[in-house]
Amino acid sequence: MQGKGSIIVLGGDGFCGWPTSLRLSNDGYDVTIVDNLSRRKIDIELGSQSLTPIETIENRLKVWKEQTGKTIHYRNINIAEDYHELRELFATLKPQTIVHFAEQRAAPYSMKSPRNKRYTVDNNINGTHNVLCALVDAGVDAHLVHLGTMGVYGYGTAGMTIPEGYLNVRVDINGKDHEIEIPYPPHPGSIYHMTKTLDAILFYYYNKNDGVRITDLHQGVVWGTNTEETLMHPALINRFDYEGDYGTVLNRFLVEAAVGHPLTVYGTGGQTRAFIHIRDTVCCIELAITNPPKTGERVKIFNQTTETHRVRELAALVSQLTGAEVRYYINPRNESLENELVVRNDQFLALGLNPIKLSEGLLGEVIDIAGKYKDRANLEKIIADSRWRADIPLDREGAAAPVSNGKVPA
Amino acid sequence: MQGKGSIIVLGGDGFCGWPTSLRLSNDGYDVTIVDNLSRRKIDIELGSQSLTPIETIENRLKVWKEQTGKTIHYRNINIAEDYHELRELFATLKPQTIVHFAEQRAAPYSMKSPRNKRYTVDNNINGTHNVLCALVDAGVDAHLVHLGTMGVYGYGTAGMTIPEGYLNVRVDINGKDHEIEIPYPPHPGSIYHMTKTLDAILFYYYNKNDGVRITDLHQGVVWGTNTEETLMHPALINRFDYEGDYGTVLNRFLVEAAVGHPLTVYGTGGQTRAFIHIRDTVCCIELAITNPPKTGERVKIFNQTTETHRVRELAALVSQLTGAEVRYYINPRNESLENELVVRNDQFLALGLNPIKLSEGLLGEVIDIAGKYKDRANLEKIIADSRWRADIPLDREGAAAPVSNGKVPA
Repeated sequence: MQGKGSIIVLGGDGFCGWPTSLRLSNDGYDVTIVDNLSRRKIDIELGSQSLTPIETIENRLKVWKEQTGKTIHYRNINIAEDYHELRELFATLKPQTIVHFAEQRAAPYSMKSPRNKRYTVDNNINGTHNVLCALVDAGVDAHLVHLGTMGVYGYGTAGMTIPEGYLNVRVDINGKDHEIEIPYPPHPGSIYHMTKTLDAILFYYYNKNDGVRITDLHQGVVWGTNTEETLMHPALINRFDYEGDYGTVLNRFLVEAAVGHPLTVYGTGGQTRAFIHIRDTVCCIELAITNPPKTGERVKIFNQTTETHRVRELAALVSQLTGAEVRYYINPRNESLENELVVRNDQFLALGLNPIKLSEGLLGEVIDIAGKYKDRANLEKIIADSRWRADIPLDREGAAAPVSNGKVPA
Repeated sequence: MQGKGSIIVLGGDGFCGWPTSLRLSNDGYDVTIVDNLSRRKIDIELGSQSLTPIETIENRLKVWKEQTGKTIHYRNINIAEDYHELRELFATLKPQTIVHFAEQRAAPYSMKSPRNKRYTVDNNINGTHNVLCALVDAGVDAHLVHLGTMGVYGYGTAGMTIPEGYLNVRVDINGKDHEIEIPYPPHPGSIYHMTKTLDAILFYYYNKNDGVRITDLHQGVVWGTNTEETLMHPALINRFDYEGDYGTVLNRFLVEAAVGHPLTVYGTGGQTRAFIHIRDTVCCIELAITNPPKTGERVKIFNQTTETHRVRELAALVSQLTGAEVRYYINPRNESLENELVVRNDQFLALGLNPIKLSEGLLGEVIDIAGKYKDRANLEKIIADSRWRADIPLDREGAAAPVSNGKVPA
């Protein structure tokens, strides 16, 4: 075992999991990745692929060893199914921390069909529950760090500044006014987001009944692709999603600009979202690991996000940088046209996070990546073809229908 | 199809489902029972059985037809697994109402082992989600009536009168005081209760996104066994559970008295619980069915309970009626020693529910049943052998350890 103790990264082959695993290994933790490669298999199912050419997990780890001399262990375990292997791994490694990224993480994918809805619920809930159950079963006092989403708050916040997980309210008890702190009422916007609000109750219960120490990170939309470690060698490059289901908005715009596709804005683009750069994600995960809850402390919740932007303003920015045309499409999501979003992230700032902002030129790095690999992009996969309700119209090809070029739809 | 339309009763072979199915059939609904007989199989697993001799589902339905001329249809479908059969049934029958009892419903059973925890989460969440997903998938606008539990509120209510599902709170938004209504913050006391709080979020989401019309019934501890319909013929008798996992407190005390076993009070007996008689359960379900939410209405939540009692006072009452000795055991549950519980049930009262109270002599009926079938009781199964945490001590036989006779432990 190396200097800083043993850490298991569940979902360590994925977009956030891979750069996190490299950072933790680089910083002296003894890292074991657990991943059933489901994200790579979903690429096959969708007839899509990462814009960046990613190596097999075996090659990734071989090159990492060559570059740094450090070993990252790998186990192919389906945490939603292979409970006894998972428990055995916990009992054997006795990790100090378990980082949990191992969930189906795309809202549009979760809405694609009944099969996708059912897979997302079954996979995410049984996976998270197996982790908690196995920790208690194996008697391992590991700190569980879970990647959640800002989406659990919903966007119907009536202009309220979103607190970090807990809300102070006043309630009348037998005529007396009491101030109490409650978990922020969940308001999920998709089946995927719903599974994260279910996770929160699993954490609440296992923390209360069994004293499991848990940190839940409510993350914004991630942009960017590379970190210090993934840049060490081409074989270490991170995956980059641009298509309708897994491509998050800013990265998707930048690829669209590179391949000469109109920027795909759904609805009026009036949605305000919270954002974070992949490098800050990795930094926040490590800050969470080095600041665990004490024994007996309730679930610790951080908002893992650094700034908020309105989608149509992002489109305007990318259009300005690249000359790309902006096109508005029918919104396949069931959400409010326009929303404000004000988010507290005091805790990470207090722990020393120095946020990477959109303006700081990292957009250029993403534009370079998008340009370099644009020939790998499948243009037919760019427009969303998932929808939130059967009564939301699609165009003839079964994708979101364009409604206007340039100007915001009324 | 008969007069009042088609109703599917999921879990219609169980303790609440069976008398409900008979009542609905008797009242002219065209009833289809869906049940995978999991409760009967758990009896085999536990080496236990209903105190009352229950017939096979086929004989039950044959005798019901002979007695009343009414047909109840039966399908053996595992709703947590057989999604396509379930969807097909919804699409074919187009029921006006679906009553959902089909979940693992014992808190002690859910805490027995990792296998039991995992089964309860997997079965209850996938089952409920499949029902919601299939309703939307099949495009059937049925009213879903779900049997929940008072346990979702938890018992840490600081003397607050428990509202019916929604709580009015005041919250500060940018310096201004706003009154908002939120779903009552979940505070589950076991893995089983946790699954019901997860169900509540599934209902919240499918109601919001897809407009599914849902009523969630937060039921108290059920006592009694027979209803007007189950008394029509011995082959129609309802099941009666008395053992450590499925036996609810009042029924268990009455069987213990009948077989000469000390009344098993766990902890100080200071727990205050909400109660309802099985006949009122059936009455409430029918009231919920005849008063569905309107299209676009949020999830309707009723507290389905008629009175509250402290466990040691129930023990004293049964001891007084029967001469049974009271014995206190180490509490296998992780809960507060003593709690108050004040519950609103205005909605059912307003709809005409005329509660059957403990004092009204129906205790005598249960004592008769317990006496009549006491030879079927397995005395070794009476004391709880599930525990909420591994550090809660058990006696040598692996069951809750007795701590005192008669007097309340300090």
